[in-house]
Amino acid sequence: MDFKVIGTSQTRWDAEAKVTGKAEYTRDIPMHNLLHGKVVRSKIAHGRVINYNLEEALKVPGVIKILTADDVPDYPYSTAGHPHRLDVTVQDKKDTNIFTRRVRYYGDAIGAVIAETELAAEEAINKVIVEYEEWPFYLTPKEALMDGAKEIHDGTGNLLGDTKNETGNVDKAFKDAKYIFEDEYHTQTVQHCHMETMVAYGYQDVDKRWVCISSTQIPHICRHILGDAFNMPFGKFRVIKPFIGGGFGNKQDIVIEPMVMAMSMAVGGKPVVLELTREELFATSRVRHAIDYKMKIAIDENYIITGIDMEAISQNGGYTSHGHAVALVGEECAHLLYNVPNFRGHSKTVYTNTAAAGAMRGYGTPQAAFALNSLVGKAARELGIDQLEFQIKNVPRSGETSYGTNVKFFTNELAECLIVGKDKFEWNKKIEYNNKFNKENIDRKRGLGVGTLIYASNTKPHSPTIENSGCRLVLNQDGSVKMMIGATEIGQGSDTVLAQMVAEILGIDYDKVYADKITDTDVAPFDPGSFASRQTYVSGMAVKKASEELKEKILVSYKLFYPIYKEIDLDIIDNNIVLKKSGEFIESLADFSLRTYYDMHKGNCLTSDVSIVCNTTAYSGTATLVNVEVDTKTGKIEILDILNVHDSGKIINPILASGQVEGGMAMGIAYGLGEEMLYDQKTGKPLNNNLLDYKIPTCMDVPDLQVGFVEPNDPTGPFGNKSLGEPPLCTPAPAISNAVANAIGIEMKSIPLTPQKVLEALTK
Amino acid sequence: MDFKVIGTSQTRWDAEAKVTGKAEYTRDIPMHNLLHGKVVRSKIAHGRVINYNLEEALKVPGVIKILTADDVPDYPYSTAGHPHRLDVTVQDKKDTNIFTRRVRYYGDAIGAVIAETELAAEEAINKVIVEYEEWPFYLTPKEALMDGAKEIHDGTGNLLGDTKNETGNVDKAFKDAKYIFEDEYHTQTVQHCHMETMVAYGYQDVDKRWVCISSTQIPHICRHILGDAFNMPFGKFRVIKPFIGGGFGNKQDIVIEPMVMAMSMAVGGKPVVLELTREELFATSRVRHAIDYKMKIAIDENYIITGIDMEAISQNGGYTSHGHAVALVGEECAHLLYNVPNFRGHSKTVYTNTAAAGAMRGYGTPQAAFALNSLVGKAARELGIDQLEFQIKNVPRSGETSYGTNVKFFTNELAECLIVGKDKFEWNKKIEYNNKFNKENIDRKRGLGVGTLIYASNTKPHSPTIENSGCRLVLNQDGSVKMMIGATEIGQGSDTVLAQMVAEILGIDYDKVYADKITDTDVAPFDPGSFASRQTYVSGMAVKKASEELKEKILVSYKLFYPIYKEIDLDIIDNNIVLKKSGEFIESLADFSLRTYYDMHKGNCLTSDVSIVCNTTAYSGTATLVNVEVDTKTGKIEILDILNVHDSGKIINPILASGQVEGGMAMGIAYGLGEEMLYDQKTGKPLNNNLLDYKIPTCMDVPDLQVGFVEPNDPTGPFGNKSLGEPPLCTPAPAISNAVANAIGIEMKSIPLTPQKVLEALTK
Repeated sequence: MDFKVIGTSQTRWDAEAKVTGKAEYTRDIPMHNLLHGKVVRSKIAHGRVINYNLEEALKVPGVIKILTADDVPDYPYSTAGHPHRLDVTVQDKKDTNIFTRRVRYYGDAIGAVIAETELAAEEAINKVIVEYEEWPFYLTPKEALMDGAKEIHDGTGNLLGDTKNETGNVDKAFKDAKYIFEDEYHTQTVQHCHMETMVAYGYQDVDKRWVCISSTQIPHICRHILGDAFNMPFGKFRVIKPFIGGGFGNKQDIVIEPMVMAMSMAVGGKPVVLELTREELFATSRVRHAIDYKMKIAIDENYIITGIDMEAISQNGGYTSHGHAVALVGEECAHLLYNVPNFRGHSKTVYTNTAAAGAMRGYGTPQAAFALNSLVGKAARELGIDQLEFQIKNVPRSGETSYGTNVKFFTNELAECLIVGKDKFEWNKKIEYNNKFNKENIDRKRGLGVGTLIYASNTKPHSPTIENSGCRLVLNQDGSVKMMIGATEIGQGSDTVLAQMVAEILGIDYDKVYADKITDTDVAPFDPGSFASRQTYVSGMAVKKASEELKEKILVSYKLFYPIYKEIDLDIIDNNIVLKKSGEFIESLADFSLRTYYDMHKGNCLTSDVSIVCNTTAYSGTATLVNVEVDTKTGKIEILDILNVHDSGKIINPILASGQVEGGMAMGIAYGLGEEMLYDQKTGKPLNNNLLDYKIPTCMDVPDLQVGFVEPNDPTGPFGNKSLGEPPLCTPAPAISNAVANAIGIEMKSIPLTPQKVLEALTK
Repeated sequence: MDFKVIGTSQTRWDAEAKVTGKAEYTRDIPMHNLLHGKVVRSKIAHGRVINYNLEEALKVPGVIKILTADDVPDYPYSTAGHPHRLDVTVQDKKDTNIFTRRVRYYGDAIGAVIAETELAAEEAINKVIVEYEEWPFYLTPKEALMDGAKEIHDGTGNLLGDTKNETGNVDKAFKDAKYIFEDEYHTQTVQHCHMETMVAYGYQDVDKRWVCISSTQIPHICRHILGDAFNMPFGKFRVIKPFIGGGFGNKQDIVIEPMVMAMSMAVGGKPVVLELTREELFATSRVRHAIDYKMKIAIDENYIITGIDMEAISQNGGYTSHGHAVALVGEECAHLLYNVPNFRGHSKTVYTNTAAAGAMRGYGTPQAAFALNSLVGKAARELGIDQLEFQIKNVPRSGETSYGTNVKFFTNELAECLIVGKDKFEWNKKIEYNNKFNKENIDRKRGLGVGTLIYASNTKPHSPTIENSGCRLVLNQDGSVKMMIGATEIGQGSDTVLAQMVAEILGIDYDKVYADKITDTDVAPFDPGSFASRQTYVSGMAVKKASEELKEKILVSYKLFYPIYKEIDLDIIDNNIVLKKSGEFIESLADFSLRTYYDMHKGNCLTSDVSIVCNTTAYSGTATLVNVEVDTKTGKIEILDILNVHDSGKIINPILASGQVEGGMAMGIAYGLGEEMLYDQKTGKPLNNNLLDYKIPTCMDVPDLQVGFVEPNDPTGPFGNKSLGEPPLCTPAPAISNAVANAIGIEMKSIPLTPQKVLEALTK
């Protein structure tokens, strides 16, 4: 395809608004007589509230009302952000109450204060005296699965999921294997650390419906979860999403919205705002599942991986949220990556008395990719093969069909990513230089590493939820177009790339497409939201369909106005209606748009309003190549060079795509090198629930990031495009770990690779 | 048609919001860092600004910027609220600048102050020293047309319009007439006096477009007029209309929006609010044209009116606005009322140095109806025929075609209104009683009067603008429906009746249809807005079409889900999908809606998004019957009984319709008895520009109002309905005047019928 707008680095439409501070985020939205909510949180990790003493708290001036678990509706709901599932047997587990007497982790929501000021609310929650019955608590799956452990959820034995999948004949593969490698790997709990915490307003509108303005990735899903939480028809709720300061999956859970809505309901529908502090966000929003793996691979005489056998134990925290699905996506990731005919996965997901784990960028794949890539790196090292060549040899190719998902890889250019990366990174030159360097230096050792990933472009084919999207376009009087989409801009730039698609199809300039700065379930066509790297792919299909329909309507309408063109093919190019064959100018779209609005007889406002169901997916490929230097005296790892090369099909907007990749790489580096949520073993209280103690890299800490793309034209993607949002962060950690092994000759099997951990390994 | 929701008195959806104060009107909308605009207004009635001295004004603390006429774009525009006209020869006259050096009336906008507070802005405008060149000014058409009068608009001779229309052979009609009656009538300048003054915010949004939040009747038209005023593409503007506290046509002119937008543009797009004071509203917004008539009618031997010859001189004020069209609609009104074959109209519209006259409820017809009904009453009295019988004899009937507009009266039951009214009012009994009363009383005289009107249901067929409308409906997950319309709720209840139409067609409950509380040009389908009594008729057509389309989509979709129903007629009744023949329940619409959203394969969000062009109109009929008592010592008129009977076709919501009529009657009574804007002869300054000096009746001053309807089913109306918004106020004044003549035997030819005027007439 020959594109004009697609594939160009258009400036994101909200760029200036954001850098100048003009963009209104949820908390910026002004509201009269806004009340302030604060959540009363448990000071124990496991147990039961026996009694609330509100006497002193109620005396705090400005306190309007205090709610306990007994004062709010009791309809358990799931916070997991999936579209409603018609089949009740596959619905998310409804185990969450707005406020609870049964405490499942330190910080669990047991009540709330509504006050005239934030300060009053804060003071009052500190004066609520709660009497607990305390139970033993479990900070790891191992503890939670001990015999006689108290059940965090009744009847579960603390086991949320336990599944075995097998494809092919794994035992035979291992029996026939020339080489077998196996090892155990550990990944840690991390937090999303989006800039904007969770914040929402709740109020009753004048039409008696309940409005939630929320920093959510999933406005339409939020609507139905509110319906679940209050046992009310979904249409009684309206959700509005303003600009968002990041989400990374955390805001794919509906954590605070039912709370703030319950608060508003308790005060007759008056507006209430609830904004989590950073500390609350760490302790009580969603985290990434810490997953431990036993990973085993079979390799034949041609150094081809023929089988994978993996076991996973996933730490889920106190509530189900996305639950076991995350471990399963990790399994799928492992199966996809080398597309082995023989695959066995055994995953367990376990409740613990820690913050609930949920969706987080990558959704189980950073964990599995770390484990599998580390083992493959180890195999290459032990077999004496260049790890990059070993990867190239084993990753799947375009045209293959996945043994794991039965989906054909119409395009799968991960191998090409590795080949391009090898060249771009000067891999061989670096090997030579590192060898030389390592010989010359005793305290500093350099090494190269690779990490790879195959990633879907939505939740298909395994998820039991619908993949759909909608788009409405309105041709304005001046030939510009208003774009209404349900796809949710959460900072990734989806509004911009979707607007580019509209401009491309309609033959108009990009800056003539106006996106909405909010997503409002009342007017935005239905779309589940921003997750699963789905929007450019799935929502792009809706946008494409709507654009094609609107273009068709414009041209048909033109022929109705000017029957002399009835039999002639017309087109829209550069904002003009032209003869399709010659490109000859007939009339500007602006002039014709005016006519379509105001012609006395044929006047008609041209719009398109479509929805699509997507039943395909496409797999993107990611390779990280990294060169590190380990200070063997301190254990500190320095990244010298790092490159991500992606096959995401056609890139819609190169500069935005690069930004997406760079952000992901920074996140992936931090995942590999430093981030980890820690709990106090004696109390279950989070130890580093703030950005002073929990370190994320600043721009000063992130090395130069190199980005490359190979761009096959995927036939299933609306513009040949595939996923890109999540993959970039999944591969740096294993690449770094492999590089460290390459540098110091020691396999690190547990992230983060803190200096302490590296030094301990070196000391052993 | 057999209706379930249409024809029922549903509670308006915004009723509670409004009576509890929860409804957000424009000025209630919170906004951060809002600046305040105030307009610098001329202190002379005619002349030119020679110099602005801003020195002292700029010293006022808090003043940000002061704009003069030289600081704003100079693209003259028309403030008149008509859809953009493609034919430039019939476009509204573009004679208005945002701010002007050329002053055309006392209070003309010559500049503006933008300040941090309203007080600072107020203080500063008083410190702007303006040096003028003063010219003679003209407060009446007569003065403005004097030889050698200074031209208010160059090259016009102060004559804005001068048209002659003739149908049939008027001279012959008068030659052949058995009786001829003629007289001169005067109507006065009045103000709309809506509760909420004109108020608007202007700011630049983060997408660089310019947003105007305004209390306007015509958001979509406002958008294009802003485009005109700034010579920018229409799509660069977005207009949002919140709840409105009345408009009555005044807000069918775009008076303040370009001003506030210019102010915002002057301060880099920061939000600015401009709210007119009541005094400014009186002096500088639109008023009703004062029209003087020479009216002449020919009557044959059967007491049938056979010809009308009328001359009108209409006082237009300093700017064109709706201009001559108002006088022409008055002519049309006269021609429609008795549907005479011979009609001649000669209308002149004249610029004067007074507030510009524009659209006001009735748009020229209250004036013409006063003059013509008064003359017809006089004829009846002089011919010794009961005026009611004389009206019944002369008004047109269903099935006739209008000589004036060539439109067929498919339904025209004005005669029936009079007949029903006669009975309901106990007309004959009252005659007897009045005769008895008048004999027994010297100082108090009673009399009966009638006023009648025929009124179109939109601007068709004469207006050169498009009559179109749009509606988008979204089926929510719970079987409720979101209704998006461009039709503008301005307090009249249009959202409610349009929602009833949706409910009716879709077979769902009225309270399952959710209207928008704002009209936002970005998302609301195009509709010119609220004027010409058009919405229930024209917008109703769009709503009906959208509803039918959505219903069809639902039922087609149902058959796709359940092919066993493929060949069976289905329907939606009482929120359920049923067998059309038997009414047998199949599934609730709520359940099916959920399925349509979330089915993995057939999932689809059902919406309809339609627009229509309306090329018909329908004529409604109005009759007022009134019984008055005149205190001959004071000249005071007391209304003893008053009844309006309307043929508005099918009434969609009886209680709202009655409210509409009652409001109109109160307005019409005030027009007949008391309201009048007065100017100081020496300065041209308004004398009574506030609600203390300009009296409008309170609910304590309004007599009991009786309302009746006859309800023919008009085949052109979407539900058999016709116009109702404007007619109610047009007939009380002539009915009262006729009743006064009946009581005291003196023809009053000039409204308002103040005690002073009546006493003067009695004294003569």
